[in-house]
Amino acid sequence: MSEQKLRAKELDAADVLAARRAAFVLDGDGGANGGGTVYLDGNSLGALPAAVPGRIEDVVRRQWGELRIRSWTEEGWWTAPERIGDRIAPLVGAAAGQVVVGDSTSVNVFKAVVGAVRLARLTAGAAGAARDEIVVDATTFPTDGYIAASAARMTGCTLRPVPPSGIPDALGERTAAVLLNHVDYRTGRLHDLPALTAAVHAAGAYAVWDLCHSAGALPVGLDEHGVDLAVGCTYKYLNGGPGAPAYLYVRAELQDRFDSPLPGWNSHAEPFGMRPEYAPAPGALRGRVGTPDILSMLALEAALDVWDGDVTIEEVRAKSLALTDFFLECVEAYVPGGRVECLTPRPHGERGSQIALRCPDAGDVMQRLIGRGVVGDFRHPDVLRFGFTPLYVGFADTERAARVLAEVLAETGA
Amino acid sequence: MSEQKLRAKELDAADVLAARRAAFVLDGDGGANGGGTVYLDGNSLGALPAAVPGRIEDVVRRQWGELRIRSWTEEGWWTAPERIGDRIAPLVGAAAGQVVVGDSTSVNVFKAVVGAVRLARLTAGAAGAARDEIVVDATTFPTDGYIAASAARMTGCTLRPVPPSGIPDALGERTAAVLLNHVDYRTGRLHDLPALTAAVHAAGAYAVWDLCHSAGALPVGLDEHGVDLAVGCTYKYLNGGPGAPAYLYVRAELQDRFDSPLPGWNSHAEPFGMRPEYAPAPGALRGRVGTPDILSMLALEAALDVWDGDVTIEEVRAKSLALTDFFLECVEAYVPGGRVECLTPRPHGERGSQIALRCPDAGDVMQRLIGRGVVGDFRHPDVLRFGFTPLYVGFADTERAARVLAEVLAETGA
Repeated sequence: MSEQKLRAKELDAADVLAARRAAFVLDGDGGANGGGTVYLDGNSLGALPAAVPGRIEDVVRRQWGELRIRSWTEEGWWTAPERIGDRIAPLVGAAAGQVVVGDSTSVNVFKAVVGAVRLARLTAGAAGAARDEIVVDATTFPTDGYIAASAARMTGCTLRPVPPSGIPDALGERTAAVLLNHVDYRTGRLHDLPALTAAVHAAGAYAVWDLCHSAGALPVGLDEHGVDLAVGCTYKYLNGGPGAPAYLYVRAELQDRFDSPLPGWNSHAEPFGMRPEYAPAPGALRGRVGTPDILSMLALEAALDVWDGDVTIEEVRAKSLALTDFFLECVEAYVPGGRVECLTPRPHGERGSQIALRCPDAGDVMQRLIGRGVVGDFRHPDVLRFGFTPLYVGFADTERAARVLAEVLAETGA
Repeated sequence: MSEQKLRAKELDAADVLAARRAAFVLDGDGGANGGGTVYLDGNSLGALPAAVPGRIEDVVRRQWGELRIRSWTEEGWWTAPERIGDRIAPLVGAAAGQVVVGDSTSVNVFKAVVGAVRLARLTAGAAGAARDEIVVDATTFPTDGYIAASAARMTGCTLRPVPPSGIPDALGERTAAVLLNHVDYRTGRLHDLPALTAAVHAAGAYAVWDLCHSAGALPVGLDEHGVDLAVGCTYKYLNGGPGAPAYLYVRAELQDRFDSPLPGWNSHAEPFGMRPEYAPAPGALRGRVGTPDILSMLALEAALDVWDGDVTIEEVRAKSLALTDFFLECVEAYVPGGRVECLTPRPHGERGSQIALRCPDAGDVMQRLIGRGVVGDFRHPDVLRFGFTPLYVGFADTERAARVLAEVLAETGA
């Protein structure tokens, strides 16, 4: 048995989260005998939590099929967006009453960025400063940039894409809002949320964070660091299912002034009053829009059960770093030098929960990996992404992934 | 047996759609023996189609649980919004390639109204006319008005609420877009889509129709009548499930100029190109935004199976009118004159697929009706709504609903 295989065995034996794997439906065996799938694509679509199928069957057959509209009140459908928001809140370091679930990440980016610009203008109003610039991470997942451009166009702002490292210097008295990614979707780089948020605030602007690639994998600390608004998806490290609804965080002190560009009837102070005049609800509900998609939303609610009990996000983070460290160690041991280039930073403070490796034939390599049961994904044009979900990925999985990668790389290219 | 009970028996026996009832999960017996529930709230939440539970179980357990991300391509998740749009299209009189499913109705109203204003300005551009007014049905379901107000604010327009009958006179060279409801959610009044659309066009403006209360219950004829944009929900007469995704129709000739205010990555010409610059996809895909909520969307897809085979929307309309005629006939026979006032117009050309009855104690009356197995709904402050879904409501159901209503009214108020 190789040194890495032995290490994997020891690490798995000492893993305090190992038992959580049973909360998911996985065909692999945790790598113990090298069988089944090693699923390293939880940063795209989280694996199925075991609690989901039964819950959804009940929602479809009994709640919809038998109770029908009564479920809006009797089964808590109507309050699901804020109830499930409160389940996500502790995972991103937010007190209750600040997170609401619904719509896609893109739609929530629109609400948050327009909302942030409007907040900046309210604040700037008396001082007379013209806040007319939205700064966006130039390396962002594209939808954030596209939606920020629309928000800029519709609020009379200019959109300014800036690489994250250059953002502090780009801020000024014209900056209204800054849209940032906590973890870069491509490289897995973790950005410094506390420092960047402080810099945005020092410039008198509002910070919007996209947590898609961090929530559920590492501590975020929204309240602690004074983040203004945040959005995230729930189908990656939160395992909510394909296209599960996203969420919006609005800091409690800002909620009374949060002025949504999508003031649908679900955000009305009295939604069943059917009044022609809009009056926004207080609190997180103000971020709601239309009727929530109950099936997807209640699948997410069931999926969040995997966090119940004594699991903490700090334990998850510790294991995530141990997994990615170990993966890099195995890649270095198995893969000939120079065959791949690691795009993910080595320092723990700059690393999310994925490893991105660049190689010229990445598309072909990933196809072969998947064919051998190691599932990561490919990002155009030359990136292999491997996501590590600490609740269900183990160290033997990790060793096997690196070993199979080395085998594939030995057969191809170079 | 009363005259009405005999008539119900005859009408049920002659009903060409009677067999469709078997495609739904219903606890009633169609009224034959007066057992179970008479469900007259399909205009709020359609009953569960029998094909849905099995399909969703497969989507959850196999597609998500086993195939995971492979399902985005292998199970057609990625193309679901336009594929399911093409299933809805014939029901609203649209050729393929013009309807895309996703987001809530409210979000689609925003896309459509902003899109219509931008189209109007493109057209008006050369002539120099300032199109700066959005006209909205003053009796609209509130969310349409709230969202239209936001669209007006964000495009520099004025919002002008006008009662539907006054709309032709309110149009002029400043009108950019007109947002109308095909059927009024409260009264069940059917508006004249062909004539109103023609009036909007004569004024050089763009017509946006909300089909929430008509799609699946009566012919819409979007293509035939030259409607520009339309939106609708899928959880009423389309039976897609609670909060099922809504849809957006953009007329084929306008698609190249449709300029969405929510240009998420799913509407990009090359979504996996991950390009920083936005380039819109051609066709209906341009109406997409973020990742589609697959569970809710595929439940809707299965729900649309009830339309397969030889059922036509014209047959559905004929039965809908026969049901509402018969309900009014029974109400007149059973309920003492003056106890309720019918808000729904008598002429077939002005009636949707619901009957709205006003009585001062409507809230209490509806509670008692539901307690006796006749499920309609209550709209503040004094409206009883009874929705007739021709695919699963029969004439004996209808007679029983009127009879129980008369019993309840005899016990209460007045």
